[in-house]
Amino acid sequence: MRILLVGASGTLGTAVADALRVDAELITASRHGDHPVDITDPDSIAALLESIGTVDAIACSAGVTPFKPLTELTRADYLAGLTDKLLGQIELVSQGIDHLSDGGSFTLVSGVLAYDPIVTGAVAATVNGALDAFVRAAAIELPRGLRINAVSATVFEEAWDAYADYFPGHKPVAVAEAGRAYVKSVRGRQTGQIYRVGY
Amino acid sequence: MRILLVGASGTLGTAVADALRVDAELITASRHGDHPVDITDPDSIAALLESIGTVDAIACSAGVTPFKPLTELTRADYLAGLTDKLLGQIELVSQGIDHLSDGGSFTLVSGVLAYDPIVTGAVAATVNGALDAFVRAAAIELPRGLRINAVSATVFEEAWDAYADYFPGHKPVAVAEAGRAYVKSVRGRQTGQIYRVGY
Ligand SMILES: NC(=O)c1ccc[n+]([C@@H]2O[C@H](COP(=O)([O-])OP(=O)(O)OC[C@H]3O[C@@H](n4cnc5c(N)ncnc54)[C@H](OP(=O)(O)O)[C@@H]3O)[C@@H](O)[C@H]2O)c1
Ligand SMILES: NC(=O)c1ccc[n+]([C@@H]2O[C@H](COP(=O)([O-])OP(=O)(O)OC[C@H]3O[C@@H](n4cnc5c(N)ncnc54)[C@H](OP(=O)(O)O)[C@@H]3O)[C@@H](O)[C@H]2O)c1
Repeated sequence: MRILLVGASGTLGTAVADALRVDAELITASRHGDHPVDITDPDSIAALLESIGTVDAIACSAGVTPFKPLTELTRADYLAGLTDKLLGQIELVSQGIDHLSDGGSFTLVSGVLAYDPIVTGAVAATVNGALDAFVRAAAIELPRGLRINAVSATVFEEAWDAYADYFPGHKPVAVAEAGRAYVKSVRGRQTGQIYRVGY
Repeated sequence: MRILLVGASGTLGTAVADALRVDAELITASRHGDHPVDITDPDSIAALLESIGTVDAIACSAGVTPFKPLTELTRADYLAGLTDKLLGQIELVSQGIDHLSDGGSFTLVSGVLAYDPIVTGAVAATVNGALDAFVRAAAIELPRGLRINAVSATVFEEAWDAYADYFPGHKPVAVAEAGRAYVKSVRGRQTGQIYRVGY
């Protein structure tokens, strides 16, 4: 099995890479990695996909959204989050369809804030809610038995030092648990699922 | 009570207007109405809000998304839906905060497709999922006791002739039921709610 993972060098991506490479050939990509790609740039996605040929799974653990108090958020902030984490991943799916083998899968990264919001998290919530609904909708239309799922985790223990103040009372989860959810998506047969991790 | 309703001339808007004007002063707006506004244009929203002064509720029943098979959807289609129904309504909220009296409310229009997808509905699903999550997130940060809810209806009986083929097995709901949900949002005290109508 050949798997493309975008965002492989991050907190989540490192754990996903460790989990996926156990029994697969893993191609790791990000802006500054071996296989450079910027998911906000459709041409860059096209170039990456062209260079790697056909894979059995495309997974993503990249996606940035601005965090600011609601009343300070500008239209540009919403557009930034939508263009990066949402449209970046949707573009990976739109273009990726032709690069997946029959029955292959997409696994996208979403997050808990769509359901359990925090102060400063409105753009993240908006983007994550959009992603979860996109996954449910795309699942019923993908051709050739292709599948799509999202992994929606709460804050990671590995990021807790930086984020604890923003998540009062939340219980962080080990990032390895999210890695497991990617394996479930890639090696299982489900589609249209939002795998909730740690919440 | 003074209420601004954007999208008042549509299928949903007419029912919402009928329900809200029973015991309130209703200001109706849309691109071609008495109070012209185009929610895709922030300047147009600013001009409308400036012209009406302070209101006790801002409700919206406008918002368009393209419908196409998943594999025919372009980046421009996603951007069109996000710019219209999603960012149009978010802009109404961002700018509307300063035009609502204390404890006033926003009521946005979302829809069933976020949870119960149909073929050709990926952009609508994405936008509706984003809106629902935005509402949950914005609710915890709005100042001065301001409230925000969404009305998420299934297809309306009044639109069934046009849409039946796209909604196999779905049960349409009378649009008046959605009108009721707007009243609940405006005259009740809840916030951060997604009122599901007919599903
Ligand atoms: N951290 C948490 O607690 C947590 C919890 C739940 C969900 N999440 C979600 O998980 C995702 C990743 O979070 P993280 O904490 O792992 O982030 P991170 O440590 O900052 O890692 C981000 C990864 O994505 C790559 N990347 C960033 N922008 C990119 C772009 N435009 N195109 C391609 N690759 C890009 C980065 O590498 P390069 O710099 O080389 O591009 C890096 O590999 C985010 O969407 C976040 O919302 C995080
Ligand atoms: N129809 C259904 O079965 C159904 C079911 C569930 C949810 N919904 C949702 O309900 C919403 C309204 O649907 P509908 O069927 O009532 O639509 P509709 O009959 O086409 O009415 C749309 C209304 O919005 C106004 N409008 C359109 N674009 C606008 C813009 N850019 N700025 C300001 N006003 C604008 C229109 O008036 P002007 O032309 O004068 O601008 C009209 O008043 C949509 O978001 C739809 O997804 C519909």
